[in-house]
Amino acid sequence: MSSQPNHPALLIPGPIEFDDAVLQSMSHYSESHVGAPFVATFSETLSMLRKLFQTTDPSSQPFVISGSGTLGWDLVAANLAEPGDDVLVLHTGYFADSFADCFETYGVKATQLKAPIGSRPQLPEIEKALKEKKYKLLTVTHVDTSTGVLSELKALSEMVHRVSPETLVIVDGVCSVGCEEIEFDKWQLDGVITASQKAIGCPAGLSISMFSGRAVKTFQSRKTPPGSYFASFKNWMPIMQNYEAKKASYFATPSPQLIHALHTSLTQILSRPLAERFATHRETSQKIKKAVTDLGLKQLASDAADQANGMTAIYLPENVKAPELLPNLLKKGVIFAGGLHKEIAAKYIRFGHMGVSVTDPKRDDIDRAIQALQNGLSEAGYQKA
Amino acid sequence: MSSQPNHPALLIPGPIEFDDAVLQSMSHYSESHVGAPFVATFSETLSMLRKLFQTTDPSSQPFVISGSGTLGWDLVAANLAEPGDDVLVLHTGYFADSFADCFETYGVKATQLKAPIGSRPQLPEIEKALKEKKYKLLTVTHVDTSTGVLSELKALSEMVHRVSPETLVIVDGVCSVGCEEIEFDKWQLDGVITASQKAIGCPAGLSISMFSGRAVKTFQSRKTPPGSYFASFKNWMPIMQNYEAKKASYFATPSPQLIHALHTSLTQILSRPLAERFATHRETSQKIKKAVTDLGLKQLASDAADQANGMTAIYLPENVKAPELLPNLLKKGVIFAGGLHKEIAAKYIRFGHMGVSVTDPKRDDIDRAIQALQNGLSEAGYQKA
Repeated sequence: MSSQPNHPALLIPGPIEFDDAVLQSMSHYSESHVGAPFVATFSETLSMLRKLFQTTDPSSQPFVISGSGTLGWDLVAANLAEPGDDVLVLHTGYFADSFADCFETYGVKATQLKAPIGSRPQLPEIEKALKEKKYKLLTVTHVDTSTGVLSELKALSEMVHRVSPETLVIVDGVCSVGCEEIEFDKWQLDGVITASQKAIGCPAGLSISMFSGRAVKTFQSRKTPPGSYFASFKNWMPIMQNYEAKKASYFATPSPQLIHALHTSLTQILSRPLAERFATHRETSQKIKKAVTDLGLKQLASDAADQANGMTAIYLPENVKAPELLPNLLKKGVIFAGGLHKEIAAKYIRFGHMGVSVTDPKRDDIDRAIQALQNGLSEAGYQKA
Repeated sequence: MSSQPNHPALLIPGPIEFDDAVLQSMSHYSESHVGAPFVATFSETLSMLRKLFQTTDPSSQPFVISGSGTLGWDLVAANLAEPGDDVLVLHTGYFADSFADCFETYGVKATQLKAPIGSRPQLPEIEKALKEKKYKLLTVTHVDTSTGVLSELKALSEMVHRVSPETLVIVDGVCSVGCEEIEFDKWQLDGVITASQKAIGCPAGLSISMFSGRAVKTFQSRKTPPGSYFASFKNWMPIMQNYEAKKASYFATPSPQLIHALHTSLTQILSRPLAERFATHRETSQKIKKAVTDLGLKQLASDAADQANGMTAIYLPENVKAPELLPNLLKKGVIFAGGLHKEIAAKYIRFGHMGVSVTDPKRDDIDRAIQALQNGLSEAGYQKA
């Protein structure tokens, strides 16, 4: 059913399994980055991103830049905040620490609001923090890939707009765009950064983001120049606007092959209603979480409302060690990821369930993975208490 | 002979035509970026880069990062110089202006030494500049993609080491690595930055670079932290060292597909002696330059010693306009690039001759291109004076 050679199903929280047509687009013959055929492909890709993020506001600005998801942090920190500005970083795991590091690199003062592992900062404490100090922007990790904790964006953004209307709402959507509901305009978001290799279903190598007209104005009214060259809005914004308007433009050479793959993947995603895509991810996630609970295991995200729909972080039973379980799962044809949150990395595993593994009815990746997990735990001597 | 569909031969100074096997590697099935198979591939790729750059000094440090060639400038400017430092930028066209911009972004004072279009700064004036002020580093564009001017690295580096031994010698090799001779160790270079999509023959999307042990020490003795987050040696150096030692490591997700393609391309390049590869590029370049001269046309690089071996920048005859000639060449199955140097962009075209179009005896790209150029000029009413 697949033109890909037999290989273990990659069920980590990114990179994910890719569709055959997407992978075939990766080997597109070479094209000029400023020639009409590629310019048209890039233009359509940028337009499709507007649909994926559910924004029709013409002042919204998409960016697609060669790089990894991490580059999105530089885009935010070097363009939307200035040295000496205060920003509020909501902490749900590994990635908030790194985002804070990125802000500090550009001279921006990051205040972290932390929560216990597996939880997230609550609205009342965020509101309190916003009332105590003026923050240029607030960042929230929509799904923290290290813990599988899902943050609630809609109520958060409403509260920020009410309490501190000048504060930009910035979302790290690396592990959420494409599998979790995001309504960029309706929820009044100012920035969502993501990467190609997770729920968008295109191989790694692209930093993908959407910023609001308000964010662009914040950038335009900077008193200091942007802190980065490669991540500078000043360098990239005219390029993105030109490409979308089907005009060739040059700052740095884009990757035609990756853009073709992204074009294919977005075309597939947008061929069905987004609501249906999100519902399928939710249903599959529920099935997986039920199987985990039935096995007597606990998730890092203890509250069901805080559980991501594209991944599940699972505490291992006392006597089961990841360095023994994961290779056994690989033998069964399934790749899960180990823990990433520094404090408890050895104690849990992560199961990614995004994209074609979830949406393609011809694949049985998820059922095989649940079965492999059950058998693997049993072979490791684990019995439900 | 090729599994790629019929398409015009892309003969611009990058991206270039890619080999079938390289493009097939782009559609490699999805792998974990921290799993043993991909870690082995990345390790071998880093080792092969040492061979490509002709460095056996274990203190040399290769980097392969998702991004474009431009990111290499940030690597240099944000890690090897500190705010307030002086650097000397040798100017041969468009790219030195941009590199200088990049330095200024990070608070580094860039002094440009300019030369007339089609020429390059000469050793005596560079020596004079180095004696007048202490420069942390000097940058030279090995081949300026905007003008086709080739700089001489060996004599330059010898002079810098003699006159100003503390000054690092940094090479922008975006349009030279893989087609022009570079002996990293023997010539005592401190940094060479490049990209995947030119003479290395792998699709765009990777920033590739090599730095000397001396450059690494310069970084390690910084008094201020690096100016960029995504381009920080601090973040990337442990990752590159771990991957090369076959240990999984994480800062930002690499692109397994692009690394596979680079692995394939480097394997092909290193299967033959490098000297032979450089000689083939020189011979083909000579043939093209002779054809250009026979047509009565002039190159931007007027002195034969300053002419690149992987591209040719050609002044158009008086009455021939690029916006008419280039589409006619496309009809004949050949893609050339327009001018890029701001002051004279409309007056010239660029012909790239790197990689498989030059080295693969099964391809007739170069002969077809020369023929198309002759016919295209004739159809535009041009006759040799």
